[in-house]
Parts: sequence; structure tokens; C-alpha cells
Amino acid sequence: MDIRIWAILAAVLALAFAGYLMFFILRQGEGNQRMRELSYAVRQGAMAFLRREFITLAIFTAVMVLILALLIEPKPWVALAYFLGTLTSALAGFLGMSMATRANARTANAAIGSWAKALKIAFSSGAVMGFCVVGLGLLGLTILSIFFEDTHVWLGFAFGASAVALFLRVGGGIFTKSADVGADLVGKVEKGIPEDDPRNAAVIADQVGDNVGDIAGMGSDLYESYVSALAAAMVLGVVAFETKGMMLPLLLGAIGIVASIVGALSVRPKEFKGSFEKQVSKAHATMNRGVYVSNILMIIAGYFAITGFMGGGGLGIFWALIIGLICGFLIGLVTEYFTSEHHRPVLGIAKASANGPAITIMEGLSMGMLSSVIPVILVAVTTVAAFYFAGLLGIAIAAVGMLINLGMLLAMDCYGPIADNAAGITEMAGLGKVARERCEALDAVGNTTAALGKGFAISSAALASLAWLATYFEVAHISIASITEVDVIAGLLIGGMMTFLFCALAMKGVSSGAFDVVNEVRRQFREITGLMEGKAKPDYVSCVDIATKRALKSMLLPGILVITVPLLIGFTLGPQAVAGVLTGALLTGFLMAVMMANSGGAWDNAKKYIEAGNLGGKGSEAHKAAVIGDTVGDPFKDTAGPSLNILIKLIGKVAVIFAPLFLLFV
Amino acid sequence: MDIRIWAILAAVLALAFAGYLMFFILRQGEGNQRMRELSYAVRQGAMAFLRREFITLAIFTAVMVLILALLIEPKPWVALAYFLGTLTSALAGFLGMSMATRANARTANAAIGSWAKALKIAFSSGAVMGFCVVGLGLLGLTILSIFFEDTHVWLGFAFGASAVALFLRVGGGIFTKSADVGADLVGKVEKGIPEDDPRNAAVIADQVGDNVGDIAGMGSDLYESYVSALAAAMVLGVVAFETKGMMLPLLLGAIGIVASIVGALSVRPKEFKGSFEKQVSKAHATMNRGVYVSNILMIIAGYFAITGFMGGGGLGIFWALIIGLICGFLIGLVTEYFTSEHHRPVLGIAKASANGPAITIMEGLSMGMLSSVIPVILVAVTTVAAFYFAGLLGIAIAAVGMLINLGMLLAMDCYGPIADNAAGITEMAGLGKVARERCEALDAVGNTTAALGKGFAISSAALASLAWLATYFEVAHISIASITEVDVIAGLLIGGMMTFLFCALAMKGVSSGAFDVVNEVRRQFREITGLMEGKAKPDYVSCVDIATKRALKSMLLPGILVITVPLLIGFTLGPQAVAGVLTGALLTGFLMAVMMANSGGAWDNAKKYIEAGNLGGKGSEAHKAAVIGDTVGDPFKDTAGPSLNILIKLIGKVAVIFAPLFLLFV
Repeated sequence: MDIRIWAILAAVLALAFAGYLMFFILRQGEGNQRMRELSYAVRQGAMAFLRREFITLAIFTAVMVLILALLIEPKPWVALAYFLGTLTSALAGFLGMSMATRANARTANAAIGSWAKALKIAFSSGAVMGFCVVGLGLLGLTILSIFFEDTHVWLGFAFGASAVALFLRVGGGIFTKSADVGADLVGKVEKGIPEDDPRNAAVIADQVGDNVGDIAGMGSDLYESYVSALAAAMVLGVVAFETKGMMLPLLLGAIGIVASIVGALSVRPKEFKGSFEKQVSKAHATMNRGVYVSNILMIIAGYFAITGFMGGGGLGIFWALIIGLICGFLIGLVTEYFTSEHHRPVLGIAKASANGPAITIMEGLSMGMLSSVIPVILVAVTTVAAFYFAGLLGIAIAAVGMLINLGMLLAMDCYGPIADNAAGITEMAGLGKVARERCEALDAVGNTTAALGKGFAISSAALASLAWLATYFEVAHISIASITEVDVIAGLLIGGMMTFLFCALAMKGVSSGAFDVVNEVRRQFREITGLMEGKAKPDYVSCVDIATKRALKSMLLPGILVITVPLLIGFTLGPQAVAGVLTGALLTGFLMAVMMANSGGAWDNAKKYIEAGNLGGKGSEAHKAAVIGDTVGDPFKDTAGPSLNILIKLIGKVAVIFAPLFLLFV
Repeated sequence: MDIRIWAILAAVLALAFAGYLMFFILRQGEGNQRMRELSYAVRQGAMAFLRREFITLAIFTAVMVLILALLIEPKPWVALAYFLGTLTSALAGFLGMSMATRANARTANAAIGSWAKALKIAFSSGAVMGFCVVGLGLLGLTILSIFFEDTHVWLGFAFGASAVALFLRVGGGIFTKSADVGADLVGKVEKGIPEDDPRNAAVIADQVGDNVGDIAGMGSDLYESYVSALAAAMVLGVVAFETKGMMLPLLLGAIGIVASIVGALSVRPKEFKGSFEKQVSKAHATMNRGVYVSNILMIIAGYFAITGFMGGGGLGIFWALIIGLICGFLIGLVTEYFTSEHHRPVLGIAKASANGPAITIMEGLSMGMLSSVIPVILVAVTTVAAFYFAGLLGIAIAAVGMLINLGMLLAMDCYGPIADNAAGITEMAGLGKVARERCEALDAVGNTTAALGKGFAISSAALASLAWLATYFEVAHISIASITEVDVIAGLLIGGMMTFLFCALAMKGVSSGAFDVVNEVRRQFREITGLMEGKAKPDYVSCVDIATKRALKSMLLPGILVITVPLLIGFTLGPQAVAGVLTGALLTGFLMAVMMANSGGAWDNAKKYIEAGNLGGKGSEAHKAAVIGDTVGDPFKDTAGPSLNILIKLIGKVAVIFAPLFLLFV
């Protein structure tokens, strides 16, 4: 058999590694009764969320599978690939969430005795998500490539993955912030109930939301980017180098998995005692080691694999890969600069807060806009350079390069919410000062990695979408789509507009959801006897369910639009105009997503900086203003911004998959 | 002589009409000593602003004229045309400001005795700006077209106009809000000085700012759009129909002037007594009459002129003209829906304010994003339809159609700040309840017309820029600029990024300016003996001068970028990539500008709605939140949003004028 056997072996290795980590986590003690209860409540809520999401997703999938099976050649294999893409992505999300909500209490419990063990559990749980994503993604694509030589089938797999991302990232994003804002509002509307009171059913929904947004949402988003980049590279690879070009991305995926596993294994926390700040930087350094190891390994192994497999002509492809990898790394640095409390932007926002909330908002917005400048230039340079080295395939390879160590990177991203939940448990279960400080230090690292993760998710979405745009040109047989034509200009305008519409609807979804949550909490206090006195328990599950229902409802219109608008434009203005739509959405979506993510992250950290005792500390006027900034920033960074990743990727998928249909009308 | 004689006569007629109105205004009584003092202070401040702006503008112009005279063919005539464009636009701005700051006290004084007369004076003063703009614009272009048959010379005239717009709209926008925010902050930082106290030098700067932003800024912005649309139509007209095609836009301009004068003359306010609301709607109806009359006249006369002049083939051009006119009208309706307190969006923001400032901000932002959807679709449809009827020339003609009645429309836009200042004077000079209510009713209409004016300014900027993009394709001999090429994609990304950079820098300029103003007010209280006790007068002029200096400084970087970036891209990635830059900037700039203008307008009116006694009225929690929304909205709608009009137009001008240079490198 050919080189794909290695890809399958690597994918199975990734899944086995995830299995091993699961086994390791489940073997750890979950702590006392109170901790188990707290963890159980979040887990129960998370499962309620997933159940409701998956029921709707199942209906959606059935409809889409039917449409694809009836309309898109090769029938019904594109439909099957779509189904597999949906299934694997949903499975990765389920496993990741399920481990995260089991690891939280275990991390807290371990933190009583050992700093190193707490870090290890939290990181391992993140790694479960990371390696399930890369393992399932690579496995699915490789198997499809063995059974089907048709490019459309491979692309169908990525399309299926993007549907899950729509549900978990957009729907999940709306849910998360509905629960968060709702929980905050309850304190205001129902006097006498503190914000984080366990009698308040929205409190658990809020914690479920943290896991939904940063684990299931982030995971499904990056799962999509990963398989999109690989599938696009396979298609463009076939165009450039026939079968060899199709196999190369799979080979790179295999190497990336091995590099990531070695990287993850080299994250070996050693027992550590020290000040809070030192714990933070130690934990960060411990995990960063894994990133460095996997990156260096990837560069070396990538060089030999590409030049060995492709011959001397492969050097250009190697450079495209490295450029993508470096672009991702540099965007991480920019994100850190704009969102970390150690640099001028966040300090500027914190200082501005002394002049009231309006100035806080203005400063945050202008910082966010400024922060999009360098990432956009980096992506532009990457695109031009990758094309220079390896043509259209180079762009896809650059996207692959950015995502190649996803196993390791996602482990770090998904580690955050687990540390966050663990810190909450140490507090609620009264585990003492040491355990609490340890978990809070881990959480502080998590905030940084989460901000980096968001910047990375957006940039990789942008690069993957560019690769997918190139794929669209191939699939739709478009050699020219000129902005001298009014159709293309109209397409660009419509695509750009989609970003604003999508964002606006997502943000409206958050406010409607928040009001539903408030009403449900009120209903429970009214109808559950003994709840107010603390004698009865609130119905967490129903609160989660209601917020999920509303989130799914709010997702309906944007979801329909993202699928129908490219089709409508394709049938009326033609395939060139659709290219305009994709490009317009990509351009505005990328800019807005970076701005929203970084403004949100910067407001968050400006608030934390003040809360740490600076500029008057908690309760000062500056703090009040910073809290308002943070509240505006929350749906920015957790709902609207991330939804745009999905918009720009999904709109490209719809165009590619349905291109054969509107080509009939040309 | 040819048909251009009519264009010259119409232009002279417009200027004569403006002269007549000036004479009419200056004949009116200025009221008592106190009123004259108040009006004089604002006038003095306005002149200080213009003096400082014009000194810097003169240096900038000298440099640009030199560059153009040395580099751009036909030498030195493009440089001369540029100089004339700058001169005429600056002259229009000077005359408009000068009348506005003389009409305010006269309007207030007239309001004591007569509702109709007050309206007439304020409207006439706005009309001075309107007819100076169209008269000077048409005169300049027509004379240049007589002496020079070279298209580049006509385009140079528009380039000159856009430099003034950069100074008055971007620099002016930063100045305006620096003064406004600075004046507000003084109250906070210096205890014991109320916000609107006349001892506070920033108070006059704030009032000067209102005139700067809504009269000089708006006027220079629309002057640029007007001459840009005409010049683009002339160039594309030559391509399609040779000399006849060049003359047609001038003929249309002439007809538009006559239609606008008839429209303005049909604004005949009759004496009116009634409730506040009735006064508002009566004043609005009185001025709307002028718009309807001029539009209907234009449609009828336009039909006969075009078909008569161009023969049967002119019908397509007529439709393009009408489509542009209708597009402007519809965008006005959308703007009104999203920013008026009679409709759901503003009411929604007002209601949301009960839940605190964060929700107010979120609701306003999502409304703003939503509000950009229909204008973008309208512009896309207009572009496609105009192209369908009359090719590339059709797009320019649609832009001309939107701006054809500018004389009348600008009169309504510029009427607002005069009514606003007059209302202020009635209060400060204690002119009694009747005069005050009359002026406030006039001011209320002004708020609506100002919001409409902003929407109109943006849409016309977008359409004019599209026409200019078409001109760029002609001038740079580009028949294809395909988004299948990475250079074009990189150009799009860079152009899109420019919008965010420009916005961020403009908003940063506001905060630096505000702090300068605060420091200056502090200095005056420290150094001017007797100021605090009210025995000495503050130095208004120095405060205005300092804020203007800072605004000019803040404008430096964005100004340099907008000129250098297209050149840089042109020299490195080539002329196709520049087309990408223009398109990217146009797309994101248009969307962001609509969002910012409408969010800002909606927050403003939500606050006013609450202040009118709804939802708890002044002093309630909802009101506090709405005030914060309004403060964020101010630089949105008066600085960042309008600056984007300039960005998208100016970047196109730089590309067109310097295209011959980077064509040398292809």
C-alpha cells in the first residue's frame, strides 16, 4: 500500500494517545462530595446543551444529506462524506466536552497536593480535544481519499465539518453569552439574589457556556479549518502534481501528528513552589516547551519528507509550509501584544477607564481596529509569498503549515476553561488558599492561551478560506473574476455586507437569549418551593435547555443566509459574482473578527489589571468603567467575532460544493 | 459657443443666488449686545480654526502642486487644476462658515418675533453653502474643460477638492470631537466648573466644532463628491461619446442648479403657531417641499435634456441618472428608519438602556451593523442597473444623479447647526420661552436632516468612488483585475485594512485632542487672573488654536498613508493590485461608515428620547446609560465615520492621478 498507510497509522496513534490521556484523567480522584456535585452539575448542563444541539443538528444533517444525495455528483458519495464530516466533528466535540467537564474537579483536587499534577490533568484534558480533532480529521480524509478519487467527495467531508462548527461555534457562542449576560442581569432584576449564588440556575448555565465556547466551539472551528486546509491542499495538489499532490498533505498531516505528540509528551510539569506570578510564568513556559519542540520537529521532518517525497521541486512547497507556520506564530505575538496587560494597549485602556466608560469603549474599539492592521498585512504577505513559492497550491500549503501542529496548539487552547472551572471549584468547595492560588495561576495562563487561540483561529480561518477560494476557482473553472466587472463588484459588496448582517444577528441573539434566561430563573424562583430558602435545588438543565433553544433559533436566520446567499448570487449574477461574495466576506469578516477578538480580550485584561489593585482597584470609578468595557467585549470576543470565522469558511464551502449547480446556468 | 455656456451661466446664477442670500441674511438684525457677543465669540473661534487649517493646507498645497507640476502630464496644468480645486473648495468652506456664524444670532433674534423668518434665515444660510458648492464646482470644471481637452486636468481639479476635504472633514472631525469631549471632561477634572460655563474656554471651541463638522466638513466632503462624480462622468463620457459625452455631465449640472434654485425658492415658510411637535413637522414639511420640487423638476428637465442632447441613445443614460437619484432617496429613508426616535431601532436602544450602558452599547453597535445592510444592497443594485443601462458611464451618471440636486440638499444639511447655535443663543441670552421653543423646534428638524445628510454623504461617496474606480481602469488601461490573482487579493486586504487603520487613528486623535483641550482650560484658570471669579474673559481663540493644531497633527499620519499606500502598492505589486486597494477600502470603508454614522445617530436620539421624559427621563439609570452611548457615538458619527468618506474618495484620486507614474514600471 502507498504512503497513506502512514497517515492512517498516525491518525490512529493520535486517537490512541487521546484514549491514553482519557484513561489517565479518569483514574484521578474527583475529590469530596461537594466537588463531585459541582462538577456533575456542569457536566449535566453540558450534556443538556449537546443533546439539544445534536437533535437539531441531526435534522439539519438529514436535510443536507438528502439535498446533496439528490443534487451533487458523485451521488450519493458527497452526501456520505458530508455525513462523515459531521459525525467526526460532533464526536470530537462530544469527547472533548465530556473530558473537560470531568477534568475540572480532578484538577482542583490534584491542586491540593501537587502543582505539577494539576497542570498535567488540565493540559491532558485539553490534549484529548486536540488529538481527537487531528486524529479524526486525518483519518476521515485519508480513508475517503482511498475509496474515492473524486475531489468533490473530499471537499464534502470538510463541508460536513463546517456544519458542526456553525452549530457549536455560532449557536454555542450565542448560548455562552446569553447565559453569561443573563446570569449577570438576574442579580439586577431580582433583588436579593447575588450574582453567583448557586440557587440561581443561570450560574451553571454560565459555567457550561465557558466549556461550550472555548472547548466545543473552538474545537469544531479548528477541526473545520484543519480539514478545510488539508482538503483544499489535496484538491490543488491533484491539479499540480496528480496523485502525489493529493498524498502530500496527508503525509504532512501524519508528520504533524507525530510532532505534536512528541511536543505534548515534552510538557512535563515538575513540582513548583513560588509566588503567583512565578507560578504563572512557570506553567506558561512548561507548555510553551511543547509548542517549540513540535514546531522544530515539524520543520526538520517536513523538510526531509517534502523534498524526499516530491523531489527537488518540493523545496518551494516546503517554504510555503514554513511561511504559514511562521505567519501563525507572528500573529500570536501581535495578539499577545494587544491583549496582554504587560503592554501599552491594555494599559492604555485601563488608564482611559479613569475618564469613564465611554472613553473605555472608544479606546478599546480603536485599539481593536489598530490590532487588525498587522495580521492582515501578514496574511497578505503570506499569500503572495506562498503563491510565489508554490502557486495556488502554495496558499493551501501555507494554511496547512499554520494548522499542522494543531494537536499541540489546541491542547493549550482547551486547557484554559478547565483551569478556569477548577479555580471556581477550589473556591466554592473551600479547598484552601494553596490549591486556589495554584488553580488561579493555571487559569491566568489560560487567559493568555485563550486570547492567542482566538487570534490563531481567525488567522487560520482566513488562510483556509483563501485556500478554499482558490479551490472554488478550480472547481468552478474560473480563470478570471475581474473587479472591472460590475457583477464581481456587486458580489464583493454583498459578501462584505454579510459580515455585518451575521455579526448583528449574532449579537441580537445574545440579548434575546439573556432575557430568556432571566425569565427562566424568575420562573424557577416562583414555582420551585424552597428554592429561595436554599432547601430545594434549581433546575439547571431546564435553564441550559432554554438558552440552547433560543441560541439555535437565533442561529436559524444567519445559518440560512450563509447557505442561500451564495446560491442566489450564483444563480442570478453567475459564478464570478460568487467569487466576489466569498472575497468580500473574507475581507470584512477577517478584519472585524480580529478587531472584535482583540478589543474583547483587551477590555477583559484591562479589567483584570485594575482588579489586581492598580488605578484604584476594585470598586473605583475606573473599575466600574472597565467592567462595562468587559461586558461589551464579551459577546465581541466570544460570539460575534468567532462566528465570523464560521461565516467566511462556510460561505466558501457552500460555493464550492454547489458550484456544479450554478455552472449549469452559465 | 457650445452648450458649456449654459453651464457657466447656471454656475454664475448659483453664485449670484448665494450672494443674494448673503445680502438678505446680513440685512437682518443681530439682536442685543449679549447675542452679538455670543455670536462674535463663535465667529472668532471659527476663523481661528480656519486660519490654522488654511496655513497648513497652504503648505500642503504648495508641496502637492510642486510634485504634480514636476511629475504629472500635462505639466503644469494638472498642478494648476489641483490648485484651483483646492482654492474653490476652501472658498466655499470659508463662505459657508462665515455666513453660518453670522446667521446664528440673527436666527435667534428673528425667532422672538417670527417663526417663519427664523426658519428662513437659517435655511438661507445653509443655502449659501449649498449654492457656493455647486456654483464653484460646476464653474471650475466647465472652465477647465474649455481650456484643456486633457482628461487628467479635469481629474486634477477633483483631486484638489479632495485635499480640502481631508483637512476640513478629517482634521475638522477630530477638532470637533476633541473640543466636545474636552469640554465635557473639564467638568470632571476641575471641580467647581460646570460643563457649559462661559468661563470655560472649551465651550466656545465646542460650538465652533459644531459649525466645523456639519458645515465646513460636510460641505467640503460633498463638494468633493460633486466634482468627483462630474469629472468621472466627463472622462467616461469622452470614452463613450467623445466631446458630447464630456459636455453631458456639465449640462446635467446646469439643470440641477436651476432645479435646486427653484426648489430653494419654493421653501416659503409661512407664519405658524402650534405645539412643539407641530412646529417640528411644519418646518420639516416646508423644507421637504423644496426637495420634492427640485427632484421632480430634475426628472422632467433631465429627460428632455438628455434625450434632446444625446438623441434616442440617451434614454439609458437618463435611467442611470434616475436610478442614482432614487438610490439616494431610498438610503435617506433607511437612515431615517434607523436613527429616528419614531422607529424600532432607536426605541430598542432606549429600552435596552434600562439594563445599563454595556447593553446600550451592544444594542447600538448591532443596530448600526444591521443598518448597513440595505444601503449596501441598494448601492450594489444601483451599480449593476446603471451599468446595464449605460455601461461604465452609467455608474458615473448614477453618482451624478444622486448628487444632482446638491444645492438644495446641502442647504437642508447645513441648516441644522445654525438652528442648533440659535437655540443655544436664545437660552444663554435669555430671549424667552417662545423664541427658545421656536429655535429648538428648528433644531430638532436639524437633527433629522443632519442624520439624513450623513447617510447621503456616505452613499454618494461610495457611488462617486465606484465611478472613480471605473475612471481608474480607464486611466491605467486596466481591462482585467482578477481576484484569481494573489496581487489583487493582497491589494484588497491592504485596502480593507486601511479603513481600520484610518478609523483607529482618527479616534485616537480625538482622545489626544481632548486631553490637550483640558490642559489648556486648566492653564487658563491658573494663569488668567479673575477668570474663575468671572471678572476676566477666557482666551477662546487660543483654545481653538490648540485643538486645531492637535487635529492637524493627528491627521498627518492617516493623510500620509492614504497618499503613499496606493503608490507603494502600485510600484511593488502593480496597477491591478492598486485596483484591489481601492476596492478593499471602498468596501470596508462604506460598511464601517454607515455603521458608525447610524449607531452614532441612533444613540444620540435614544438619549434625546429619554430626555424628553420617557423611560424615567433625565437622571434615571437609563438616561445615564444613554449618555454613555451618545458619548461613544459622537466620534463615531462626527469623526471616524465621515473620515472614511474621505479615505475611500481620496485613495481613488491618488491612484488615478499617479497612475501614469506606476504604469512606467509595468
